[in-house]
Amino acid sequence: MDFKEVITQRRAVNFFDTEKDVSESLLREAIELAAKTPSGFNLQPWSLIILKDKEEKMKLQKLAWNQPKISEAPATLILLADRQGWKAGHPFVERNFNEMVNAGAMKPEQHQWFADTCAALYGSSEDKQQAFACKNAGFFAMSLMLAAKSLGLDTHPMDGFDHEGVRKAFRVPENYWIPLLMAVGYFRKGAELSPPKWRKSFDEIVVKF
Amino acid sequence: MDFKEVITQRRAVNFFDTEKDVSESLLREAIELAAKTPSGFNLQPWSLIILKDKEEKMKLQKLAWNQPKISEAPATLILLADRQGWKAGHPFVERNFNEMVNAGAMKPEQHQWFADTCAALYGSSEDKQQAFACKNAGFFAMSLMLAAKSLGLDTHPMDGFDHEGVRKAFRVPENYWIPLLMAVGYFRKGAELSPPKWRKSFDEIVVKF
Repeated sequence: MDFKEVITQRRAVNFFDTEKDVSESLLREAIELAAKTPSGFNLQPWSLIILKDKEEKMKLQKLAWNQPKISEAPATLILLADRQGWKAGHPFVERNFNEMVNAGAMKPEQHQWFADTCAALYGSSEDKQQAFACKNAGFFAMSLMLAAKSLGLDTHPMDGFDHEGVRKAFRVPENYWIPLLMAVGYFRKGAELSPPKWRKSFDEIVVKF
Repeated sequence: MDFKEVITQRRAVNFFDTEKDVSESLLREAIELAAKTPSGFNLQPWSLIILKDKEEKMKLQKLAWNQPKISEAPATLILLADRQGWKAGHPFVERNFNEMVNAGAMKPEQHQWFADTCAALYGSSEDKQQAFACKNAGFFAMSLMLAAKSLGLDTHPMDGFDHEGVRKAFRVPENYWIPLLMAVGYFRKGAELSPPKWRKSFDEIVVKF
């Protein structure tokens, strides 16, 4: 599917077809495409909890303004952003360093430099940790919404939920922030899709001080 | 250009063709495509400073580990994420509310509810403000990298810079966080593009607790 069509036709849909499941293989394909997303120092501080079970989705729905799409969509995802995903000793940080060494992009003796630099850029304040986690998870979520659309799937990103309630109910460890939930499925035929919302123009986006 | 090609061929390129400018119209087209990015409550808390002038780019480069790509790329962008972009009275927040009223998606008497809800979700802690700003700006930046690629442009997102130094040098107001810089241009022919970096697999991304 053409990129312009994908980015233009992606819409946050409120109504999902409850009769149409998302196959494991299609959801995997969307996630594998989104896995190509870049990240700061390639640290990829994102994870997903996938809910397909009706009871699990209802548990989430009750913590999210009781939005019906959470249980109506065949799959609802809880996106996680790892605020500690820059720290020396973290399995994916070390994996990343080793992969860079294997690829010849880094020398083993640069480990301390790598650890110190990640800590300075991403770990030296609460603000930096949160920016690191949420920006990169935002990259990933955006890729995933577009990848899903390119495969014929519809999505709906949601912010309206009880952050600490969801953390507790799904036993999400403290190192993660939960930037959004995302319903994934197929738009329900016959339901009404509202017209595209307004967007800032080029001249409203570009600033100078 | 096909979406799969775009997401697969997008690479952070280190070397830009210094002889090949990016036309105003092409950069505008990329930004206008990225403007279709969704955001929490459609608040679109993102802005861009575009640097094309060599001196301005050099000023930025000196604050960003002296990375040559900053001045070699024909355009380098400073992405801004508005941490106050949820607040009642903010021009784009009110614009957004009015647009929703005009579209029939909201009633004028819901203004207080809208203001309170945005404040609760996005403004009630430093963490929430930062998550709101950086996640949504992350969505926008990812769309922009892909939109640029779909138009034949290459990009390089950068975190290696002195955040407060850049703020000061470019007079960025306190309400903005600077999540990343982005070089935009054309890959320099003959330069070496390293092989794609490793990425987490589906089974490494999907978690359960």
